[in-house]
Amino acid sequence: MATDRGQRPDGAQSLAPQESKVMMKEPSAKYRSFAPIDIKDRTWPNKVITAAPLWCSVDLRDGNQALIEPMDAARKRRMFDLLIKTGFKEIEVGFPAASQTDFDFVRELIERNLIPDDVTIQVLTQARAELIERTFESLRGAKRAIVHLYNSTSTVQRRVVFGLDRAGIIDIAVQGAKCVIEQARKQPKTEWYFEYSPESFTGTELDFAVEICNAVTGVWQPTPDHKVILNLPATVEMATPNVYADQIEWFGRNIANRESIVLSVHPHNDRGTAVAAAELAVMAGADRVEGTLFGNGERTGNVDVVTLAMNLYTQGVHPNLDFSNINEAARCVEQCNQLPIHPRHPYVGDLVFTAFSGSHQDAIKKGFAARKESDTWEVPYLPIDPRDLGRTYESVIRVNSQSGKGGIAYLMERDYGVSMPRRLQIEFSQAVQAVTDATGKELLSDQIWAMFQKEYLEQSGAYGYVSHQLTTTQAHPEIQKLAIKLKCNGQGALLNGEGNGPIDALVDALGFRFDVLSFEEHSIGTGSNARAMSCVEITTPARTTLFGVGIHENIVTASLLAVLSAVNRALQRNLLDDSMPVASARG
Amino acid sequence: MATDRGQRPDGAQSLAPQESKVMMKEPSAKYRSFAPIDIKDRTWPNKVITAAPLWCSVDLRDGNQALIEPMDAARKRRMFDLLIKTGFKEIEVGFPAASQTDFDFVRELIERNLIPDDVTIQVLTQARAELIERTFESLRGAKRAIVHLYNSTSTVQRRVVFGLDRAGIIDIAVQGAKCVIEQARKQPKTEWYFEYSPESFTGTELDFAVEICNAVTGVWQPTPDHKVILNLPATVEMATPNVYADQIEWFGRNIANRESIVLSVHPHNDRGTAVAAAELAVMAGADRVEGTLFGNGERTGNVDVVTLAMNLYTQGVHPNLDFSNINEAARCVEQCNQLPIHPRHPYVGDLVFTAFSGSHQDAIKKGFAARKESDTWEVPYLPIDPRDLGRTYESVIRVNSQSGKGGIAYLMERDYGVSMPRRLQIEFSQAVQAVTDATGKELLSDQIWAMFQKEYLEQSGAYGYVSHQLTTTQAHPEIQKLAIKLKCNGQGALLNGEGNGPIDALVDALGFRFDVLSFEEHSIGTGSNARAMSCVEITTPARTTLFGVGIHENIVTASLLAVLSAVNRALQRNLLDDSMPVASARG
Repeated sequence: MATDRGQRPDGAQSLAPQESKVMMKEPSAKYRSFAPIDIKDRTWPNKVITAAPLWCSVDLRDGNQALIEPMDAARKRRMFDLLIKTGFKEIEVGFPAASQTDFDFVRELIERNLIPDDVTIQVLTQARAELIERTFESLRGAKRAIVHLYNSTSTVQRRVVFGLDRAGIIDIAVQGAKCVIEQARKQPKTEWYFEYSPESFTGTELDFAVEICNAVTGVWQPTPDHKVILNLPATVEMATPNVYADQIEWFGRNIANRESIVLSVHPHNDRGTAVAAAELAVMAGADRVEGTLFGNGERTGNVDVVTLAMNLYTQGVHPNLDFSNINEAARCVEQCNQLPIHPRHPYVGDLVFTAFSGSHQDAIKKGFAARKESDTWEVPYLPIDPRDLGRTYESVIRVNSQSGKGGIAYLMERDYGVSMPRRLQIEFSQAVQAVTDATGKELLSDQIWAMFQKEYLEQSGAYGYVSHQLTTTQAHPEIQKLAIKLKCNGQGALLNGEGNGPIDALVDALGFRFDVLSFEEHSIGTGSNARAMSCVEITTPARTTLFGVGIHENIVTASLLAVLSAVNRALQRNLLDDSMPVASARG
Repeated sequence: MATDRGQRPDGAQSLAPQESKVMMKEPSAKYRSFAPIDIKDRTWPNKVITAAPLWCSVDLRDGNQALIEPMDAARKRRMFDLLIKTGFKEIEVGFPAASQTDFDFVRELIERNLIPDDVTIQVLTQARAELIERTFESLRGAKRAIVHLYNSTSTVQRRVVFGLDRAGIIDIAVQGAKCVIEQARKQPKTEWYFEYSPESFTGTELDFAVEICNAVTGVWQPTPDHKVILNLPATVEMATPNVYADQIEWFGRNIANRESIVLSVHPHNDRGTAVAAAELAVMAGADRVEGTLFGNGERTGNVDVVTLAMNLYTQGVHPNLDFSNINEAARCVEQCNQLPIHPRHPYVGDLVFTAFSGSHQDAIKKGFAARKESDTWEVPYLPIDPRDLGRTYESVIRVNSQSGKGGIAYLMERDYGVSMPRRLQIEFSQAVQAVTDATGKELLSDQIWAMFQKEYLEQSGAYGYVSHQLTTTQAHPEIQKLAIKLKCNGQGALLNGEGNGPIDALVDALGFRFDVLSFEEHSIGTGSNARAMSCVEITTPARTTLFGVGIHENIVTASLLAVLSAVNRALQRNLLDDSMPVASARG
């Protein structure tokens, strides 16, 4: 129930008698509602977003600093390459004055000339002279860079952390801004851009935010041809997203020299509304959004740029970012961050294009059937064409849901000790569905297991495993060499390959073009009967993903069987080019 | 970049030269932007939410239908009990005409008298006579119930699924509404309430939504004393959340007999803005919200009621729901849904009250120090007091982050094959921090491993494991009996217990009051050297959670060691009542 400010509401009237048991402590004494912004003539609710904002990825900085295990150099590089490939033109690559790893990474990017000409790197620094100096040291030799200066401005930080009044806090920012200018003058070959963040902006009085930003731009003297970025972080999300939009519109109206400023936002997701806050902020005048892929970041995360971009895409607005192979991006980010993406995450989650309900499946089927290729996208329950993301729509029946005995995964685990990764569950349930659709009958556990064996475990495809040998040399112990004997369409063949491990080496030996997206292995059974089950997910050149599974007492053999299972299944579906004679592949 | 409707924007101006490589296909031909709502005099942007809406949980229906493995009767019952405990007064318990499991569950609730007097169950049905009859059959004997009728009303569903015009779709709803009235008259002892949803409301013309709802309420004839629920689902989230708010405000202004209607919303999260959509909708006049715990549901999920409730709480508004032990709710929901809650999920995720950054830790520390108990909550980076949710603030240093060698978890896995559950990583890193804080030195891998052994693996606490024996009887094979020999403070003791498994039996034997929240076990090493590592998370009566770990060749022994490790650690911290002499516990 909502009321105009200051009024008390009538109690919401329930249908049923409700006891007024107050369970959680009454919060009114401890918490207070966020004070509304005085802006009755706001214009943003009448706006529609018609072009993408500028994007800045902060995966390597704000995202990285919130990881249990921060990225090492190799993972940083993988993330950077993905960001480039995806189309980011501004990338905050680190906080070099605070971390040697970050410093070294910035040096690597510059010295090894890894930054494309149309990409600008950005680094963060606190407003302290020694840190600013160290920051510029890390940037020596860069063609172009954004130096991002910040200090905390909120009422609570001023009081409890800094013990300073407004003037004292402004002085920190102004001294920092001056130091930035001085340092930049010492490296005139670099094209410098500056960004200032009044950190904890959402907890800062708006007039003070404007005052401190005006003081900083007074030092930096931006022009319409050489703008300054003013970035307004929702360091902590403190109110409903319309309030953030009001703050942005108010700020944009009141800041000096608006035409020389790129107005940037940096939402966090404490209240679960960061995406909404960013969208309403863009409606309210923000030019630029800082965020991360799939929303990694401090606590509840930064705003998810992928969701923002795809939200634009579904409204006919090009996001200037490329997520046409969203699965590949997802697996890369999961590996870099060592954190999972949730199965219900918009656009990318394993379950978001899966319909379990019969009536949904029916409507989707009819929607596809009625659709001509040139039509505007309009399929029930699917807000976007999954193919635009390199994904497919999946309809999954619920085996035995009527009988209450649980699903495929449950039966397989209970009766055969087989625990399937979620995406494999989805894939396999479609194979099961093909049978139940044809027969109309419920499947029993042993029938499902027989299907699983036939689909994944029987070596009945083009490539059958016979035996293998692994070796390394003393000179290069990090290189795994593999000699594998196979039955290829009935004929014996010996292939050789090498890589950083057995799977890598087998991919090399086979010579097909595909990537291994994910790998999982666990034990089935215990003691002397224990075996390893290995599940490998591959992606083909046409960006179809599919699984292979291997079970064996030896964990390496299980992995090799899994790769062969995936390859055989891909070949059956004509997803891999098998024109190359095996014998010529190698050795 | 946003513009008033119809205008084209200037291109957003970047700092650096940007190539206009268009990578994803230009979407403008395939997708179109959602048409804005014509409501320039909207009032919701000036509103503030000052009281909680009515809540209706749809975990057992919309949530359940989207699970890979739908809940069986036992999991349904656990979920129902949690919803009751949490304070829900309206609970949609199923779709009995579509599922025998749902039908049986409704019967169980009624026949076993499991529904508290102040709780109303709700069931969903399509607008078809035979389904409505079956629905009422499931409700026979209920004291009070909400029958929730729906049919699809969107333009695309009318065209491609039903092939009907507006009048035809209204006829389905009206015939359904009449059938509901007829069936209700046959069971006069039950207190009936009715709900109608124009399903796919967000894809329905507003005037048609009003027209069809007026037609239904024309049949049902609600009064201010006996209202009807009109529920407007964002079956698919199709636009920015302000548009949904506009739709709700427009509907509320134009629907007939508004004073006899409970205006309900049912947002989904396709664009990642369901929480925002629900909040703005409440500002726009919605009285009631349907959603699920932690946002489970079709595709991207239903709106998360927990986040909505805690968002209110932090604004000083009592949500009328109790999440003062949010960990317990989270583990229960994860077990019922067999889906994880993301570590960055607002309020509940494992990482949302964890600060990794030194400057954040410093500010939080100062915020706590400056705070008096009677003060309004104002601690930097913490939007809510974690204790209000039964949680604690955790500051986690990043061991070796400066040296780039990775964190604790990484070292432990690389060097000792030990893979720790995420919450255990957090817990253990605090123990490590206590040492590094004291010594100021970086820790090496073997030192961290020694600390892990001391903290979790050495049986140096009150209870030491000696040996155990497991048995079952032929008469009750489902009951696991355990006889365990322990060293209790130096003295030998034999305890006996029973349960549904060895852990359960040990908890029983020990006689302390605590619950096992989570259990995880995996192998370390392979072949003849393989051992099992078992991690057990317990919660004490004071709602502290802590871990125990056991490593042993035998997986059962490893589990028992883990429980004893947790108990010993809890006793050392005075978190368990150890007044009871062990000998008297049993046998």
